[in-house]
Amino acid sequence: LVALCAATTVGFVSIIFVLRWVLYFKEGLAWDGGLAEFNWHPVLIVIGFIFLQGIAIIVYRLPWTWQCSKLMMKFIHAGLNLTAFVFAVISMVAVFDFHNAANIPNMYSLHSWLGLTAVILYCLQLVLGVGLYLIPITPVSWRAAFMPIHVYSGLLLFTGVIAVALMGITEKLIFGLKDPKYKDSPPEAIFVNVLGLLLVIFGGLILWIATR
Amino acid sequence: LVALCAATTVGFVSIIFVLRWVLYFKEGLAWDGGLAEFNWHPVLIVIGFIFLQGIAIIVYRLPWTWQCSKLMMKFIHAGLNLTAFVFAVISMVAVFDFHNAANIPNMYSLHSWLGLTAVILYCLQLVLGVGLYLIPITPVSWRAAFMPIHVYSGLLLFTGVIAVALMGITEKLIFGLKDPKYKDSPPEAIFVNVLGLLLVIFGGLILWIATR
Ligand code: HEM
Ligand code: HEM
Ligand code: HEM
Ligand code: HEM
Ligand SMILES: O=C1O[C@H]([C@@H](O)CO)C(O)=C1O
Repeated sequence: LVALCAATTVGFVSIIFVLRWVLYFKEGLAWDGGLAEFNWHPVLIVIGFIFLQGIAIIVYRLPWTWQCSKLMMKFIHAGLNLTAFVFAVISMVAVFDFHNAANIPNMYSLHSWLGLTAVILYCLQLVLGVGLYLIPITPVSWRAAFMPIHVYSGLLLFTGVIAVALMGITEKLIFGLKDPKYKDSPPEAIFVNVLGLLLVIFGGLILWIATR
Repeated sequence: LVALCAATTVGFVSIIFVLRWVLYFKEGLAWDGGLAEFNWHPVLIVIGFIFLQGIAIIVYRLPWTWQCSKLMMKFIHAGLNLTAFVFAVISMVAVFDFHNAANIPNMYSLHSWLGLTAVILYCLQLVLGVGLYLIPITPVSWRAAFMPIHVYSGLLLFTGVIAVALMGITEKLIFGLKDPKYKDSPPEAIFVNVLGLLLVIFGGLILWIATR
């Protein structure tokens, strides 16, 4: 329960950090094919793909949900994961659109390879989750047989998404900071490094709660 | 058991990939304060901190070790983890030495922050592991009480180390490829992106084996 409060707090602080990054240090938010459109990418990832996915994973463990029916819990878990997926997709549309407008190649980086793979596998997890655990006709033996795989792949995807975000932060700091450079540790570099630490702590807390 | 063979194979292929990267695409290996000294950094990380740590984690699960005594198993687990730690320390000496010789600032990046944190926590894990599970005087109740934390922090550190390696690969590809750039996907970029994928698959397999 301490871990739960800590996770929520760290999650909210991460969201404040990513907003301050794009609004105060960078070009703000817009949908204009420019850098302000790119900025939707980290914002939607942190709010949606990291924070909402993290909450979705621990939702079965929250004390005040123990009184809800199991079906209601499943709808909340599936709904949060679906919302996280939608955020992730829009965030990727933002980068692709920005890249095409600025004539930057697509899908060249390890970040983009792993990121796209994570989103595709996440979609598969979502479809299999609905098919196995929400549709009433699925036999209970199947549900039980697939549960260890569902939990393993869910936690691996969550961890992978945080790793991909850390690579994205690294790339953006190198590309975005020119004078002074990332190497010279301007305030933005320190601030965003701290955002990276917060995301790791958030991930560690969610994994702790989910494996107790 | 299929997962076990797959993990070992992917691990060995990763080692071949990192060696081919530094020997064929880059400046080779040397201890001269130059780029060839930096190259020890990824090589020792992949061989030591990733491969040996991964094997150390699953060593209790290997079929041919079921006939060994528990104490012997502990020595193998602790010895492999100690070797991995030594490799990690030497690999960091290589970068610091290279940075100082080339007048590049130290510890500016999120990669270096998370990397150094991981090595320090790994050292703590090692000391606590010896103190709790190797020294005969530790009461059995303590051993049992700390085991869930030992397993959680061990798996989190392993995962974190892979994430740090992916950030390091990203940085090196951006800094090292100038003409053609990383964005233009020269053969080295594709080759090293594949190395990144292999490390993720290796990590996923080790985590699968360790949580069965
Ligand atoms: C963890 C979830 C994330 C996913 C799934 C993801 C996915 C992607 C994908 C698929 C691309 C390629 C777009 C293209 O080729 O046109 C991309 C590009 C990019 N992303 Fe992310 N991203 C994530 C998080 C982040 C974060 C938090 C940042 C921080 C700013 C970031 C920074 C970048 C940058 C700078 C690029 C352009 C360079 C490149 O293509 O590698 N990403 N991302
Ligand atoms: C990409 C989307 C999804 C991810 C990442 C995901 C991830 C997870 C994780 C990590 C757990 C373990 C939670 C814990 O042990 O506390 C879990 C449990 C579960 N998930 Fe999902 N899930 C997803 C989609 C779904 C969907 C669509 C359903 C359908 C309702 C579903 C049904 C369940 C059920 C029934 C459990 C077991 C709860 C319990 O009794 O402990 N999941 N999920
Ligand atoms: C996962 C284990 C790793 C750890 C613990 C680690 C640790 C570190 C540390 C502490 C530094 C800072 C050195 C200094 O400031 O003088 C550093 C720098 C660096 N590392 Fe790693 N590293 C790891 C993996 C990798 C890998 C696989 C690569 C791939 C080539 C890499 C590439 C770099 C680069 C390019 C630098 C210099 C830029 C910077 O300081 O961020 N690292 N690493
Ligand atoms: C940084 C170093 C270490 C790491 C990363 C680490 C990690 C792990 C992990 C992940 C497990 C779970 C393995 C599984 O479930 O298959 C484990 C189990 C264990 N570790 Fe460590 N460990 C470290 C050092 C040590 C040391 C020095 C000892 C002292 C002997 C030790 C003793 C044990 C024991 C007794 C188990 C339980 C084995 C069992 O019966 O399942 N560990 N360790
Ligand atoms: O539908 C369900 O499937 C799992 C379980 O039956 C599988 O182990 C679970 O907790 C449900 O509510």
